[in-house]
Amino acid sequence: MPHEVVTFGEAMVRLSPAGFRRLEQTRALELFVGGAELNTAVGLARLGHSTAWVSRLTRNPLGRLIANHAREAGVNTEHVLWTDSDRVGVYFLEFGAAPRASSVLYDRKDSAIANIRPGMVNWSTVFSGAKWFHVTGITPALSSTAAEATREALKAARTAGLQTSIDLNYRAKLWSPADAGRWMTEFMQYCDVLITTEEDVERVFGIEGVDYEDLAAQVAKRFSLSVVAITLRENPLVWKNSWTAIAHQNGKVFRTRTYEVEIVDRLGAGDSFAAGLIHGLLEGDVQRGLDFGVAASALKHSIPGDFDWITREEVENLLMGPGLRISR
Amino acid sequence: MPHEVVTFGEAMVRLSPAGFRRLEQTRALELFVGGAELNTAVGLARLGHSTAWVSRLTRNPLGRLIANHAREAGVNTEHVLWTDSDRVGVYFLEFGAAPRASSVLYDRKDSAIANIRPGMVNWSTVFSGAKWFHVTGITPALSSTAAEATREALKAARTAGLQTSIDLNYRAKLWSPADAGRWMTEFMQYCDVLITTEEDVERVFGIEGVDYEDLAAQVAKRFSLSVVAITLRENPLVWKNSWTAIAHQNGKVFRTRTYEVEIVDRLGAGDSFAAGLIHGLLEGDVQRGLDFGVAASALKHSIPGDFDWITREEVENLLMGPGLRISR
Amino acid sequence: MPHEVVTFGEAMVRLSPAGFRRLEQTRALELFVGGAELNTAVGLARLGHSTAWVSRLTRNPLGRLIANHAREAGVNTEHVLWTDSDRVGVYFLEFGAAPRASSVLYDRKDSAIANIRPGMVNWSTVFSGAKWFHVTGITPALSSTAAEATREALKAARTAGLQTSIDLNYRAKLWSPADAGRWMTEFMQYCDVLITTEEDVERVFGIEGVDYEDLAAQVAKRFSLSVVAITLRENPLVWKNSWTAIAHQNGKVFRTRTYEVEIVDRLGAGDSFAAGLIHGLLEGDVQRGLDFGVAASALKHSIPGDFDWITREEVENLLMGPGLRISR
Amino acid sequence: MPHEVVTFGEAMVRLSPAGFRRLEQTRALELFVGGAELNTAVGLARLGHSTAWVSRLTRNPLGRLIANHAREAGVNTEHVLWTDSDRVGVYFLEFGAAPRASSVLYDRKDSAIANIRPGMVNWSTVFSGAKWFHVTGITPALSSTAAEATREALKAARTAGLQTSIDLNYRAKLWSPADAGRWMTEFMQYCDVLITTEEDVERVFGIEGVDYEDLAAQVAKRFSLSVVAITLRENPLVWKNSWTAIAHQNGKVFRTRTYEVEIVDRLGAGDSFAAGLIHGLLEGDVQRGLDFGVAASALKHSIPGDFDWITREEVENLLMGPGLRISR
Amino acid sequence: MPHEVVTFGEAMVRLSPAGFRRLEQTRALELFVGGAELNTAVGLARLGHSTAWVSRLTRNPLGRLIANHAREAGVNTEHVLWTDSDRVGVYFLEFGAAPRASSVLYDRKDSAIANIRPGMVNWSTVFSGAKWFHVTGITPALSSTAAEATREALKAARTAGLQTSIDLNYRAKLWSPADAGRWMTEFMQYCDVLITTEEDVERVFGIEGVDYEDLAAQVAKRFSLSVVAITLRENPLVWKNSWTAIAHQNGKVFRTRTYEVEIVDRLGAGDSFAAGLIHGLLEGDVQRGLDFGVAASALKHSIPGDFDWITREEVENLLMGPGLRISR
Amino acid sequence: MPHEVVTFGEAMVRLSPAGFRRLEQTRALELFVGGAELNTAVGLARLGHSTAWVSRLTRNPLGRLIANHAREAGVNTEHVLWTDSDRVGVYFLEFGAAPRASSVLYDRKDSAIANIRPGMVNWSTVFSGAKWFHVTGITPALSSTAAEATREALKAARTAGLQTSIDLNYRAKLWSPADAGRWMTEFMQYCDVLITTEEDVERVFGIEGVDYEDLAAQVAKRFSLSVVAITLRENPLVWKNSWTAIAHQNGKVFRTRTYEVEIVDRLGAGDSFAAGLIHGLLEGDVQRGLDFGVAASALKHSIPGDFDWITREEVENLLMGPGLRISR
Repeated sequence: MPHEVVTFGEAMVRLSPAGFRRLEQTRALELFVGGAELNTAVGLARLGHSTAWVSRLTRNPLGRLIANHAREAGVNTEHVLWTDSDRVGVYFLEFGAAPRASSVLYDRKDSAIANIRPGMVNWSTVFSGAKWFHVTGITPALSSTAAEATREALKAARTAGLQTSIDLNYRAKLWSPADAGRWMTEFMQYCDVLITTEEDVERVFGIEGVDYEDLAAQVAKRFSLSVVAITLRENPLVWKNSWTAIAHQNGKVFRTRTYEVEIVDRLGAGDSFAAGLIHGLLEGDVQRGLDFGVAASALKHSIPGDFDWITREEVENLLMGPGLRISR
Repeated sequence: MPHEVVTFGEAMVRLSPAGFRRLEQTRALELFVGGAELNTAVGLARLGHSTAWVSRLTRNPLGRLIANHAREAGVNTEHVLWTDSDRVGVYFLEFGAAPRASSVLYDRKDSAIANIRPGMVNWSTVFSGAKWFHVTGITPALSSTAAEATREALKAARTAGLQTSIDLNYRAKLWSPADAGRWMTEFMQYCDVLITTEEDVERVFGIEGVDYEDLAAQVAKRFSLSVVAITLRENPLVWKNSWTAIAHQNGKVFRTRTYEVEIVDRLGAGDSFAAGLIHGLLEGDVQRGLDFGVAASALKHSIPGDFDWITREEVENLLMGPGLRISR
Repeated sequence: MPHEVVTFGEAMVRLSPAGFRRLEQTRALELFVGGAELNTAVGLARLGHSTAWVSRLTRNPLGRLIANHAREAGVNTEHVLWTDSDRVGVYFLEFGAAPRASSVLYDRKDSAIANIRPGMVNWSTVFSGAKWFHVTGITPALSSTAAEATREALKAARTAGLQTSIDLNYRAKLWSPADAGRWMTEFMQYCDVLITTEEDVERVFGIEGVDYEDLAAQVAKRFSLSVVAITLRENPLVWKNSWTAIAHQNGKVFRTRTYEVEIVDRLGAGDSFAAGLIHGLLEGDVQRGLDFGVAASALKHSIPGDFDWITREEVENLLMGPGLRISR
Repeated sequence: MPHEVVTFGEAMVRLSPAGFRRLEQTRALELFVGGAELNTAVGLARLGHSTAWVSRLTRNPLGRLIANHAREAGVNTEHVLWTDSDRVGVYFLEFGAAPRASSVLYDRKDSAIANIRPGMVNWSTVFSGAKWFHVTGITPALSSTAAEATREALKAARTAGLQTSIDLNYRAKLWSPADAGRWMTEFMQYCDVLITTEEDVERVFGIEGVDYEDLAAQVAKRFSLSVVAITLRENPLVWKNSWTAIAHQNGKVFRTRTYEVEIVDRLGAGDSFAAGLIHGLLEGDVQRGLDFGVAASALKHSIPGDFDWITREEVENLLMGPGLRISR
Repeated sequence: MPHEVVTFGEAMVRLSPAGFRRLEQTRALELFVGGAELNTAVGLARLGHSTAWVSRLTRNPLGRLIANHAREAGVNTEHVLWTDSDRVGVYFLEFGAAPRASSVLYDRKDSAIANIRPGMVNWSTVFSGAKWFHVTGITPALSSTAAEATREALKAARTAGLQTSIDLNYRAKLWSPADAGRWMTEFMQYCDVLITTEEDVERVFGIEGVDYEDLAAQVAKRFSLSVVAITLRENPLVWKNSWTAIAHQNGKVFRTRTYEVEIVDRLGAGDSFAAGLIHGLLEGDVQRGLDFGVAASALKHSIPGDFDWITREEVENLLMGPGLRISR
Repeated sequence: MPHEVVTFGEAMVRLSPAGFRRLEQTRALELFVGGAELNTAVGLARLGHSTAWVSRLTRNPLGRLIANHAREAGVNTEHVLWTDSDRVGVYFLEFGAAPRASSVLYDRKDSAIANIRPGMVNWSTVFSGAKWFHVTGITPALSSTAAEATREALKAARTAGLQTSIDLNYRAKLWSPADAGRWMTEFMQYCDVLITTEEDVERVFGIEGVDYEDLAAQVAKRFSLSVVAITLRENPLVWKNSWTAIAHQNGKVFRTRTYEVEIVDRLGAGDSFAAGLIHGLLEGDVQRGLDFGVAASALKHSIPGDFDWITREEVENLLMGPGLRISR
């Protein structure tokens, strides 16, 4: 059965203390599953799209747990590769409060997906009947073979006639700006839609703009991209931010509402934005994609875990502007 | 032993995920008990009044649990009717964060109290020695027989010489504005004190005012009410509101302090206001009732569950204006 | 995509206090999802079979939660019917300790599946390519229309050439022995494999035997069944039982090992037995089915919730007899 | 409103780690309320008797919490004395597993009830209309003034025509056998029913018997008691005991069933036995009291906390001998 | 092995309900350990200093628990005195939300440290090789013998050539302003560094200033202090404050950044400030002490429990001004 | 300051679901710290010995957490090596119930201690003033450099005049029997006391005996060991075992009581036995060591986590044979 959207990347077991405890002092951890491309797949599934997530997992309880969580959220896992070797990546998350930022401790080295190599995935089967392929800059950052596998996937997606989106998602703990710049520049030739932040564009591509609009225009032009979307966060505090995004298409800039978000958990917000944007673009409407992306990701800030447990109806209600009264 | 105040209505088992989880993702639920008239009874018991709550409950662990919680909070349950049929209502509550409002999922159909009929409660016994009867617009909304039983109770209260208060409490999920308007209009003849919001007055009675004061005056006049109180919430965010109320009595408007409330749980705040207002009116002082009602309900926002676990002393301390230092 | 096995029935939200608390005293509930036919579907999915579960759910967070849990455990939900009306059934479970038995409080009336009617499910589509259909005596007990829908399903399964199994699963809280006897007797004509207990056979069919083997033989003969399996529990205590089963096929009795089980949660054990039995029968081997069924369900007793979170490899290891040492 | 039964003693906040943790290693504590005489009052309330508990509590959140819990369980607290001085007793409980016994760390010195003095309670009001007074050897052990207050209460109960029961309940951490012997011997003149264990009789009264029956007979004779009941526990392990009791009345010995109990929490079991025994004696039937007492207290072992959250119907069902199947 | 810093005082078991529950309604308590001087010792240990805490504890699980927590956080406990008598102090903490302040219920009477007397601690051994001694106004407030032991310690510290700091820490629940004033005035002769708030200076010493700087100058002059530091909190709300401090040294006023703090738990913030200040002063740099003190204590507000689980590197990063982005 | 006992090995973060959940289904994990040699160090510290644990840890929150837990339990960590590279080992633990054994999932590859090399630890400093060195077969199994470092440590211990003990602790997931046999055989020349099980002796050394005594005698003879101790577990069930040990010294066999243990958590039981045995041997008394070892480790089974949170007094009380009554 073909899947409308395919994403490709790592998902990890995420472990975080409750009640803003530091890791050093906690005696218990809450468990979620997260990973940029899986998060976006979940976002799309929640908005009603048939979605498959491609990855590589170790055949043990943690690997199965990750696949279980993906399926629970409506994402197909039939194309996941299973191995008896390697391990499942884990990350530890501490929630902060101003002036202490939230922080992440990765323990993801030598994971099954980091050891993926070109040829392992049968992309032509995976992409059969699909419309969209999405990946982020994290997948190629995992290892050089993962970068090669990402290139293979992007090429195959082009060949199969899919639209493609890439979230730049630069991770300083995984690779250098130089390495990122080299690989991501190469990938731009296979990319229709780029999703990023001002900061990442500067770090990865070395491009600076006089403002967001200018930056998006420069990037779109340099890489001949169809759409460039930039998310904008203002964060004077940890528990409350303002959040919006812009999009650039064919020389035109699109804007949407800015949300004041009370923050329960901001991880996965960018991935949720990608899901909403792709949702709109699948309907051929960048303004709708931007509206949906920002609204869905604004809601994501209120939900624990990396996944955006919203419904399409809730996003549409928010776009129509209901208030904060309790419905009863 | 007579009870100074009597309230009449439904209480439900309230189930809510911790940590702002959505219902879909939770694996555990916190359990509280709540219901508008029981909440007000609790508020009055906490302020030192002998209070009885009248309802109908199924004789099973959930029914007993509701009665246990009422008694724990100091409310007498000797007049509760017990049945082996029907069920205990449940509601599921999701706590939100801007831009996601908190939301309620009712599962209250066919509850024992919804199946109450006139003649089941011996109101003359219940009201013997009592001074005040309180009910809200939720009880008659449960079913037509519940509406009839509410009318019976109000008439009996009048006959027995009690003062009566009604909180309009319109619930769109239970009945239409037209039905509400018809029944509530009829009930106004038995009502001394009306507690409501601007929005509910408009939806139920179709009355609009140039401002709150005007609205209260119109309502008081149309229904010949002794006191009309209107609570005022400004909620730009989910976690912080400003909260106050006004009261109208004999053509005069009373005001009190506006509180900035950091919100742990706003359910039951209106019911707590009613308790404080009745507390003051029992002493014959509408200003004191307004002060107490707003202070008690401001405190309610900081307390989990529907009940207002405060003491009279704490309300009085707040009215005297102490700050937010930790007392030690 | 065809599913090898299809099951049909209700699933409920299951809420239970931790730490052996009584419902009356608890302030929190653990949430699981369970229902006999879903549990069996999960058991089969865990053993490697492609499985779909057919039901009817209300389109709200609780309905979605049930579908999420089914998918998480590997069960397909594409044939679930969704409705905006009715409700999601809930059951409350208290865990006991001798001499207090565990107890269940159902709140399942008026659920979406109880209101199912013949014609709602397109069984020919559902059964396309499938090999096995499984249902229990709970589904027809939900309502007369649900009983009719069960008959429709069984007939359609026969027409489509599937093998069918029925677990008698008599529920005294749902219907009388007479009603159960009438419907179940009718269903036997569409049934290949009957799974039950000595007690249920007597209550539903009025059949008594000199021993288990005789009972199975009588039932097999009366209804011309291919296989009759009877589970045997000895429970002098709540926390430890002995557990086994026998099967009767073509006049021959099959036996397997008896397990001493330390009981964490016995709900769903019978459903897990059904899954293991069907697993073996799909391979045409009743002894293997009996072995797998009893081993899988013995393991189920050690796992919280209704689902049997085991792997096929774990069952096979248990059949090969490893001890209770910690593997490290 | 008169109360059928009155009990008098201390209740404490009970704090225990979950999951068999030692106090030293825990980071959280579960909170219950318990105290021998309150536990018995709860047991009687659950069996349907109107019951009041007399004590002295400090007017702070912990004192109110204790009264709340008493009321929640159906016990009247109107005769509790409130003071602004002193403190609320606390005890810490570690649950064990063989070969580690459960252990209790008291922090009850200087509690409000320990500082009670004769004259503080208006016993004639308390006992007006009552039929039974119950106290244990813990109350007089708290302080010499508490012992005097206990004597005062017993005398007043006699004067008011109540029947009285005393549970010997020797606590080595509170007083010496000599002190206990002196006071308890004096109290026997006001006592109709004595509840105890073989070990306590020997430690407090220095009486040894050839067997339980002989012991009970000796005690009954020496103190001219109407009924002497002795509970019998065999505890080779912490998680499973056998449990029963005998009673002696007018030279005749009464016996009842012995229960194998799987132990969740045995604290309060003796107090629950007292409740069941008094329940039967109020009906004038020592055999029924013994049956009820042992059955209710056998159930108590399965329930967390000091209170016996059972219903009269559950005890009666157990007496009729149902098994350990899950009712559904 | 000598310890660079020594502190002296009480630590208690701290018990608090989760989720902003009131004590009356909670069924569980979170357990931390805290006490002003221990908190400061922890703060210094976390910043890299060898630190010992002197106290007196009862030899039971709670006493050991307190020592365990101190050691866990890197504080040496070899000089703690152990006794079989007395008790371990406990305090109950309710977290608030505007307009309800957090509140503390002490149950610390008759603790082992309150019963300390001069001569019990061998101060010359304790201070051998040490550089700094710190105590607060809480220790002498515990009892008159504790006040005498505090004087003994201060004298011994002077004799041994240590620098000394005192945090005024007035506790109205422990002693009167007059008693505090008398003892603290006497102690000033042994004090190099005073840490306090504007309010406490006025209550204890009766000194008022035209502004903070003036106040600090007056105090420094009157008592010939080397350094006077004053912490400044503005708290319009419970969940967000602004926080800073000033220091006065040799007629010069030092200032540092003001932090907007989102408050998880403000207990121990002042103690953490003391640790940072002493840390800087040990390096001879009052500006660095002020910067470190305010930054460390700003971070403390974000951490549950009384201890400041930060690292020196985190404080230094904050001083260099990083934002609130998640590092990944 | 010299430490009486030194141990050397890995400690990991241990993560386990509560309530017997499988890893796949859990949404939370309880966190403990454990590792064979650290567990034994804790056991010795709890029995009153000054003990240091040598290891290598990554300088991050998880590494600090491990050191914190060691210190909390009274173990010195000053000789731990800290590195910015590598990772902290983690293991996941599922608690079972018959017929499902508990199981462990290691994620310990590439930990800091696995990358230890000879020369990193200054053993002559570490052993200065010490009396005993303890290590297990896990440390050399971590890597070949770790095996070399273990050899270095054993040689240095011999040189420094310490007594040495080795627990064979064969881990099939870490190395082959052949590798274990080769290294452990080499280590025997530096070993005074060998602790093991019948099964491990056979797997590692290929030695079989006609009974335990014979086996111990053979091993003692082959390797010229002073003491050989063998622990004996009979485990028909997961929740209850019988547990004892024997010791062989100079051709004589020592025995002690067999305990029926109700099992909360058996991990670390063997390590606790080692601690008790060493405790006795430090006093020169193998019988006392055997008694203490078996009693301490019997108690360990009742305590969650790898550490044996008992006191020396509790072990001595158990040796004197008190029952399972609650002390109060």
